[in-house]
Amino acid sequence: MLYQQKLRFSTRGRGTYDISSQVEDCVAKSAIQTGICQLFIQHTSASIILCENADETVREDLDRFMAKLIPDGSPLFEHMNEGPDDMPAHVRTTLTQSSISIPVSKGRCELGTWQGVYLWEHRTNCHKRNIIVTVMGE
Amino acid sequence: MLYQQKLRFSTRGRGTYDISSQVEDCVAKSAIQTGICQLFIQHTSASIILCENADETVREDLDRFMAKLIPDGSPLFEHMNEGPDDMPAHVRTTLTQSSISIPVSKGRCELGTWQGVYLWEHRTNCHKRNIIVTVMGE
Amino acid sequence: MLYQQKLRFSTRGRGTYDISSQVEDCVAKSAIQTGICQLFIQHTSASIILCENADETVREDLDRFMAKLIPDGSPLFEHMNEGPDDMPAHVRTTLTQSSISIPVSKGRCELGTWQGVYLWEHRTNCHKRNIIVTVMGE
Repeated sequence: MLYQQKLRFSTRGRGTYDISSQVEDCVAKSAIQTGICQLFIQHTSASIILCENADETVREDLDRFMAKLIPDGSPLFEHMNEGPDDMPAHVRTTLTQSSISIPVSKGRCELGTWQGVYLWEHRTNCHKRNIIVTVMGE
Repeated sequence: MLYQQKLRFSTRGRGTYDISSQVEDCVAKSAIQTGICQLFIQHTSASIILCENADETVREDLDRFMAKLIPDGSPLFEHMNEGPDDMPAHVRTTLTQSSISIPVSKGRCELGTWQGVYLWEHRTNCHKRNIIVTVMGE
Repeated sequence: MLYQQKLRFSTRGRGTYDISSQVEDCVAKSAIQTGICQLFIQHTSASIILCENADETVREDLDRFMAKLIPDGSPLFEHMNEGPDDMPAHVRTTLTQSSISIPVSKGRCELGTWQGVYLWEHRTNCHKRNIIVTVMGE
């Protein structure tokens, strides 16, 4: 069995957005009980990550770490066509994930107790982001 | 065909643990000859990585690099509920992988000669870690 | 349906190599219309990444960032058997990806407009690199 759906999100600047429930909805619609749920973001300046879902300071700390590691407007970068956060967004994406796969069991994503699925917007402006969800199994 | 199994590991502090043989056992039990073996760790402070399997100093160097890049107890981090290695463990996980997929061919994981599969524990204490293995194919 | 093929590449030193068309060829040969295309590199000193495909300075900036973050010949590293770029290549691979999955829709990889698939060679010498492509779906 196979199910595929495109999810569309509107981001409101740099930061993490919890998309766990939308992903879970796709798995429910697929009616697949056991298998894999594969997520793919069609952009190179936003990521999909799994992260601790209890304390939001974890995601704030993550963003602060990245901002220090890859400073906006760094003179290291030539590619600045769309502003000082342009190339840092590409580096952040490369150091995290564009595609992740989550096992499906008993008709649900088999996430750990403290795991959530997040869209991580790396650009400082608002953007439209597409994530393709493919569920395979039986 | 589809096979799914949960593997349980007890870690004894920060470092890498070779899980290649346990993963290979799942593929053998699945009886799948060609397809994909998907690994997923249900935690946000430990990773699954593919790494050089010949010289253990590679994994020691990796850990030393991470310890320097993301210092335990860094004043950058607010989230320190569980100690100075708490937030660094989340960052290490985000910069590596929670889920990887390995092709299956002739009933075995199609790893390169020098590739091993490792559970990378990022916390300094002992922990129980679950990895879900899903094998799909024919 | 299931299709698997090994792609072989000859790299000519550190840098990114566009492999999008070879991956697309595998999907076409598979005749699969909807599903997942999974890529896996059988090496621990080269990566597969998704990256901006319009301006090549993005990939040059990425490499410059990595070279600064993980300096060749750093005294931090013990493992230098094959030269000053040996251990940095392992770290670069661990911080990026060895395996990625791309959704397949209407018989093609469902990449975003600005996404390309790249083999990122992290060693400074020429190397032979194998990537296994597995396409699953219907």
